[in-house]
Formats: sequence, structure tokens, C-alpha cells
Amino acid sequence: MDELHWKTSITDIKPNKICVRGYPVDKLMGKVSFAQAVYLILKGELPSEAVGKLIEAILVSSIDHGATPPSVLAARTVASTGAELNAAIAAGVLAISRYHGGAIEEGMKLFLEIDRRAEANNISFKEAVNEVLKEMKEKKKRASGFGHRLHTQDPRTKKLFFMAEELGLAGKFVRIALTVEEELANLIGKRLPINVDGAIAALLCELEIPPEIGNAFFIMARVPGLVAHIHEEKRRMKPMRKIHPQDYEYDGPRERDI
Amino acid sequence: MDELHWKTSITDIKPNKICVRGYPVDKLMGKVSFAQAVYLILKGELPSEAVGKLIEAILVSSIDHGATPPSVLAARTVASTGAELNAAIAAGVLAISRYHGGAIEEGMKLFLEIDRRAEANNISFKEAVNEVLKEMKEKKKRASGFGHRLHTQDPRTKKLFFMAEELGLAGKFVRIALTVEEELANLIGKRLPINVDGAIAALLCELEIPPEIGNAFFIMARVPGLVAHIHEEKRRMKPMRKIHPQDYEYDGPRERDI
Amino acid sequence: MDELHWKTSITDIKPNKICVRGYPVDKLMGKVSFAQAVYLILKGELPSEAVGKLIEAILVSSIDHGATPPSVLAARTVASTGAELNAAIAAGVLAISRYHGGAIEEGMKLFLEIDRRAEANNISFKEAVNEVLKEMKEKKKRASGFGHRLHTQDPRTKKLFFMAEELGLAGKFVRIALTVEEELANLIGKRLPINVDGAIAALLCELEIPPEIGNAFFIMARVPGLVAHIHEEKRRMKPMRKIHPQDYEYDGPRERDI
Amino acid sequence: MDELHWKTSITDIKPNKICVRGYPVDKLMGKVSFAQAVYLILKGELPSEAVGKLIEAILVSSIDHGATPPSVLAARTVASTGAELNAAIAAGVLAISRYHGGAIEEGMKLFLEIDRRAEANNISFKEAVNEVLKEMKEKKKRASGFGHRLHTQDPRTKKLFFMAEELGLAGKFVRIALTVEEELANLIGKRLPINVDGAIAALLCELEIPPEIGNAFFIMARVPGLVAHIHEEKRRMKPMRKIHPQDYEYDGPRERDI
Repeated sequence: MDELHWKTSITDIKPNKICVRGYPVDKLMGKVSFAQAVYLILKGELPSEAVGKLIEAILVSSIDHGATPPSVLAARTVASTGAELNAAIAAGVLAISRYHGGAIEEGMKLFLEIDRRAEANNISFKEAVNEVLKEMKEKKKRASGFGHRLHTQDPRTKKLFFMAEELGLAGKFVRIALTVEEELANLIGKRLPINVDGAIAALLCELEIPPEIGNAFFIMARVPGLVAHIHEEKRRMKPMRKIHPQDYEYDGPRERDI
Repeated sequence: MDELHWKTSITDIKPNKICVRGYPVDKLMGKVSFAQAVYLILKGELPSEAVGKLIEAILVSSIDHGATPPSVLAARTVASTGAELNAAIAAGVLAISRYHGGAIEEGMKLFLEIDRRAEANNISFKEAVNEVLKEMKEKKKRASGFGHRLHTQDPRTKKLFFMAEELGLAGKFVRIALTVEEELANLIGKRLPINVDGAIAALLCELEIPPEIGNAFFIMARVPGLVAHIHEEKRRMKPMRKIHPQDYEYDGPRERDI
Repeated sequence: MDELHWKTSITDIKPNKICVRGYPVDKLMGKVSFAQAVYLILKGELPSEAVGKLIEAILVSSIDHGATPPSVLAARTVASTGAELNAAIAAGVLAISRYHGGAIEEGMKLFLEIDRRAEANNISFKEAVNEVLKEMKEKKKRASGFGHRLHTQDPRTKKLFFMAEELGLAGKFVRIALTVEEELANLIGKRLPINVDGAIAALLCELEIPPEIGNAFFIMARVPGLVAHIHEEKRRMKPMRKIHPQDYEYDGPRERDI
Repeated sequence: MDELHWKTSITDIKPNKICVRGYPVDKLMGKVSFAQAVYLILKGELPSEAVGKLIEAILVSSIDHGATPPSVLAARTVASTGAELNAAIAAGVLAISRYHGGAIEEGMKLFLEIDRRAEANNISFKEAVNEVLKEMKEKKKRASGFGHRLHTQDPRTKKLFFMAEELGLAGKFVRIALTVEEELANLIGKRLPINVDGAIAALLCELEIPPEIGNAFFIMARVPGLVAHIHEEKRRMKPMRKIHPQDYEYDGPRERDI
């Protein structure tokens, strides 16, 4: 059964030695941030400090969005039946799919296609955007990463783009995303602002993250939020309660400065 | 159906405003690390810088442990069938249970019980440890968080305890864990060193994290590792391959300095 | 790595031959019911026709219970995010836990303990029931399998016990369950009728199913119901809708005769 | 929040009354098989006796296929960590995806497309099959439901088609499937026999099951098999063992007659 032998390039394990992408994990501890370690394990190399900071901001931006996203409702529903913590987290993760968090992967593919097309046809981003948006309209496809049920100007998008600019990491994909926002408004006569998924999509393109793991950034960021909701559900609520998806009230600390 | 109205104290959502435990998330971005945000969302308050650093080191310590832990095998097995990224992550999370990662929660409960007993009976930690270990032996229960199949001196434990000491966060629970290690050796005539789960358990007790969410730290830390394995599986391997649980080889970068 | 060699006694696979517990699966097809095959694969032997009929009735009894059980809400919530069918089913299964479906395993353990105690102490079922219920009251534990939020006389319980009687399969565990119902009423001054989980628990004890797989009968029975709800959600509802856990209306066919 | 009001046509729940698609569930118990109930809940009407028998045979055919399919390995891996029964089942279900079980949905879509094309273009099935197969070849797509790693003549396929014939349910979709098998052999010069997924796909087309729930038949059938493997893993094996995906031996009862 020798043909089952296989290879992996992620982590090397020997007695008393654990090397992640070549770096002893105990040397990483205390020296690199978790965000840098995330980049390392996914890309194979340590990021620059600036890239680490941007990843960190992306993770912080998506740590939670209150009690009503489907991932939270699925996790709370499962927690409410007395299930184990890991089962409730898993249920939450299963809800992070096409329409919830999934806009990152789809947004990345959209931006990469626009870039590819601009280069291949030697046209401007504006022209490429219009070409692609027209084709999507014909296929009745929506542009992922634009518009939000609640936020007309998502504070997370603004801060992410501001930080990317400051850190010197805002390049062509941020420009592409802004062009999509603009041309979309012209096309449909209504402003659909870049939402946090769209902003993360643009930035992950800048960082050359493969789109297939784009949604993973949302999942990695959101797991702590799910844990907080599961814990609150188990501590504060009665088992098997009916969980209303909207009619809830926030009773935590008032807005405060850091 | 007014009786369905409920309350949550985690995150307040208003148009263009998202406050996590009272802090606007866009103010947190760029100012606090993801590790600090994790503490904030779980405990309700921002941690001191020292506590943030310790949480960060805990998360980095457990980001991956190679290709053979059951969580990785479950995630790769599911990924190999062509399942979506979130389904494969969920399968990995489902494998982080009693015998894999679960030692954190059980270790925390053990250390908290020893502390409680020392205080209640006004006895030394050594006496309390011996009492508890004897009771466990009678019930044929093993002490969670001690011993490792491969590592006789886990580099992660050493670094975590070293950092806790440096940061002024090593208190009675670290002493209790070390006492358990010592008395366990006396009792069974064999050294079972504190493993990384045991070390994390002691430190989370120091940080007053509730034991019911102890395992969540392992899960939050390991999700990026799972993503790396799922991505490698999908990119590098053929679908539906038979995944040998041991016969693999590391072919990534050699050990290197940071 | 010879030490990894292992054994299984469930199904033997050879080229063009599949034997489940010794029986060629193509010989089982058309000859045994799915319920009989379920018993075969779990117990290792084909059931009598009577036992097959009882298993069948158990499976039919629990195929669905409308749109509000947490398993359905979890499955619909995940389906609503555009997740794959298997992810939505998995989320539903994760919600079948301690407080939802879990009463089967706990009920079985209760009935087995009462039987064990009656025999060990040479006392009547009534005496054993009272002993056990008193102990549970002291520990503030509830008897699993009794009482229902909605049904004061669950039609499924009645039919299951009637069929068990007809089929000659109602033995001491049905008597024990009825005794618990009676003594519970005396003890707490309020009738908590045996619910469907309690009835299934008693019958699975009669069939010598191990309690650890008691809940599996609920899961096997309910998966088709989950599939129907997921399919309806995807076909009939808009993605990402807010799913109210109570305020829904049935608009299918009116009650009809078979 | 009146706009949250919604409708479902699956099961009506009132005090002491449960009607599945209009039929009181206690009237269904003892009268219809689980297979008939599965059809009822998915399609909305009770099947004829013949259809019920075919569904039953489909479910029995796929109840288990030994220890090495990825769904079993995922379920055993999770079970081996000490996870709950429902978590292990969910992990198994997550592995029933595109390349494992997924051939049913894809096979159904293939057969429906061939039928649609034959009708639309007024050509024979043979011509339509050749058209579609050529297009698939150009896109480097494989025909789902044909060929098996181990079985050159799958006994389940043979029996399913034989039963469908006997029951008068083998119609145009069985002809289409057989035509695909034949033309595929001509096209690639190698016989890829219809496998069990392909056979089920053809039969579910005959029964007018929507393709989007085709894989659900595999999942519903396989859950009992997963439960048997999880139970064996927990009973017979040590926790956290390394599960070899091939090197196992069957030690159950020898082949026997029913």
C-alpha cells in the first residue's frame, strides 16, 4: 500500500519540534501576530508588517454583526438544543455560504476578471467594468459585494480602505472596486455602496490571496463572534426557546471610546 | 407573540454603526489586535496589553499541528469529496471534541476544582492536588492536559509559561498545573509533562475565561490551519484519494529563522 | 505501519459483491423493508416480521413535526444562505441533541435503570420507579420522555403502544414507562403523558437496541423531513429571509383519509 | 413585524393532531412503509405500491458500502475523538458531496438534458446522447453515474433495473441510461458500466423526483450505515486511533441466505 504515501508542505512535526512553513512555532509565538500567522499558514511566507496589519483589521472588522445573521441564528438554534460547543460552531460555519459571507469569493472573482480583461484587451478598468457588468446583467447576475440591507455607508469599508491607503496597500483592485461602485450606479440609477465583503474582496486581491479561500477570512473572523453568541445563549436563555430573528434588543454597554 | 422579544449584550447594530461590547468596530480596527478583539467579544471588556499578548501567543501556538490530527483528517476527507470550503471546515470543527482539543475544558475544570478545594479546606495546593488525583484514580479518570504521544517537552508549553511569567500573568493556576505534573509523576512513577492543552487551560484560568468556552480557543486557533489543509488538499491532491493517516512526508521549506 | 490494520464486522465488499452482515445486498433488495435493513445493520441480524413492522412505525412516526422544531429551523436557516443540500441536512442533524430528540437515549437509560434496580433489589417496578424518581427529584433532574408542549395525548404514542401490543412486542419496558407516567403524576400532582420520544425509548428497550444509538432512530426518521423543508425553503422562499420560528401557516392539503 | 408571516405545505401541527401532507401520521403508521412516507413527504402524494417498492429497494441498496467511503471515514474520525453521535453523523453527511453520492444529482441532470434535447430537436435518444457526450468531452466533463473503482458489474444496478422492469417502472430514462452506457463505450473504447448512483439517477427521473434532491436519497439511505460504523468505532476501537483508509479486514458473518 505504498501508493498511499503522500506529501504536505504546511507543518513539519518532529518530537519536541513543530515548524509551521519552516518556522518553529515557539519562535513565532510572541513575535508575530495571529493575523501574521494566518497569512503565513495560508500563503507560505510571513507577511510584511503592513500586510499583517491589514489582515488584522480585516479579521477585527468581521468578528461580529449582532444577533441576526443566519450563522448566528443557526449556531444559537443548535446551542439551544443542548448541543456541544463544537456542534453549534459547526452549524454556524455551515451557514456562511453563498449569500452570507460568500460575497468575498464572488467579489474577488469579479475583480480578478475585470483586471484580466482590462489587460487582455488593453482597455481601461472603466471599459472592462462596463463590459463585465453588461454581461452580468444579461445573465441576471448581481455584482457580489455591493449594497447592504442596513448600512448605506459601511463604517468597516471606509476604515479598511483608509487603512489600505495609509499602509500603501491600496492598488489596482481597490480602484477596480470603486469603479464598479461608480459604474453600477450609472447602470442601475441607484448607489449600491461597496459593503464589507466587497472591500475585503478587493483587499484580498491586493494581497494575492486565492479567491477559493476568500470566504475563509470571513469564517476565521466570525468564529469568535459565534462563540460569544453560543455562550450567551447557553448562559442567559432557556433551552429550546423560540429564537425570533429580528425582535431583539441590545442591552450591553453603551457606546464608548477606546 | 411579544413573548419572543429577547435581549443580547454582545453587539449593537444600527444603520452605519456597529458597536462590539460598546466599541465602534471601525475604531477597534487598526487599534486592537484580533486577539484583543477575541477577548473583548468573549469577556465584554478590552484586555490589558499583556493579556492581549498572551491570548495572541495562545492562538499562534495552536494554529496547526501537521496533517494527522483527526480534525485535519476529517476536513481533508470531506474536502476530497468536492465539498464546499465551509462544509470541510465544519467537519474539522466537529472533530475537535473530548479527546482532541477537549483537554482544555477538562483541564480548566480540574485546576479550578483544585483551587476551590485548597481554599475551602484550607489546605495546600499539593494536598488538594493529591486529594483530587486520588479520587480520579479511583474513578479511573485520567488527568486532562498531561502527556503527549510525541512531545516529551512540548515547546509550546515552555514558551507559553515563559511568556506568562514575563508578562506577569503566571499566578496560582500555573503553580497548580506544575504541582499536578509533579504529583502525577510521584503517583504513577512516570513523568507526563504538561501538554499544550494543559498549559492553555492553566493560562485561561488565570485570565478568568469560563471553562465552557475553553475549547473554543483551540477551535479559533485551528480554523486557519484547517483552511490551509483543505486548500492544499483541493489544489494538490486528486479527489477521492485514500488519505493515509500517518504515511506522509513534509516537503515544505526547511527550518528557518524569523 | 502494520499496526494500523483493523477489523469491521458490518459490510464485506468484494468485486461485484456487497454483503451487509453476511447478506448480499441485492438479495435484501425487494425482500426486506428499509426498516428491516436498518435493524439488520445496527443489530447484526434480520428482525422478525413483527419487529420490522414496529421499527417501520417508529420511523414513520417521527418523519416530521412541522416547521418549528430547532432541527428544521437550523436546516432552513442554512439552506436559506444558499448552502448545499448536505450542509443544510448536517446543520439539522446537529440540532438533534439533548433537548430535541435526545429524550430517547435518556428515556432508555431511565427505563433500563428502573428494570435493573427492580431485579437487583427484588422490588416491584412501582417501587423501583418511585426510588429512581425520588433520586432524580433530589438532583433536580427531569424524567426524559414525558410531557409535551402541545400534545396532551400524543397520537403517535398511542399508536405505537397499540401496535406493539398487537405485534406481541409490548413487554416489561412498556409497563415500566406506563408506571413512570402514573407515579410521576402522583409525585408532582400533574399528568405528564408519555411523549413520542418516551414511547420510542420504551419500544427500543423492548427490542434490545443499545441506548447510545437510541437518538439515531430519531435522526434516521427525521432526515427525510429535513430534506422536504430544505427543498421547500429553496424553492418557495427568498434567500436570506428572516425565518420566524412560530408565525407560520400551513397551506398544504386538508386532512384526508388514506 | 407582520411581514415575517410565512407558509409551509409539509406538515400541519395542532394539539394532538399531526398531519403530513394531509394524512394523520398515526393513520400512516402501520399502513405505509417508511419508503412510502419518504415519497409522500418529498412529493406531496402517496406513491403507488409499485413506486413504494422501488423507493424501498433504492434505500436498501445504498444502506452501506463498507468502511472506506469518505463519509464513513469522516464519521469514524469524528466519532473517534469522543464527539456525540449527531456530530459524527453530520460529518459523514458533509462528505456526501460532488464526488461521493453526488453522481445521482448530476446523473439526473444528464438524463433529463438528453430527454429534453431528443424531444426539442426531434432526434433519437442515441443521437441526443452522442450530442451531449461530445459536448461534455469538449468541456472535459465526465458522465456522472458510470464506472466503478471496484465493481465491473454492480449487483445493485442489475437488481434495481430488474425490479423496475418487473414493477412496470422502467421507462425512457432507463433506456437513456443504457444508451449512455453503450455510446460511452463506443466513444472511449472502454466499458464504463452504469453504477448504483447512475441507476438510482435513472429511476428517480422515472419517478419525477426533482434532481436537486437526488443526492438526498443517498443520504437518507446511508445514515443508518453511518450509525452502524460510528457505533462500532465507539464500542470496538480505542479513541483517537489512526484510521487506515484501506488496510482493514471484514470479520463479520460469512455470506448467508435470507
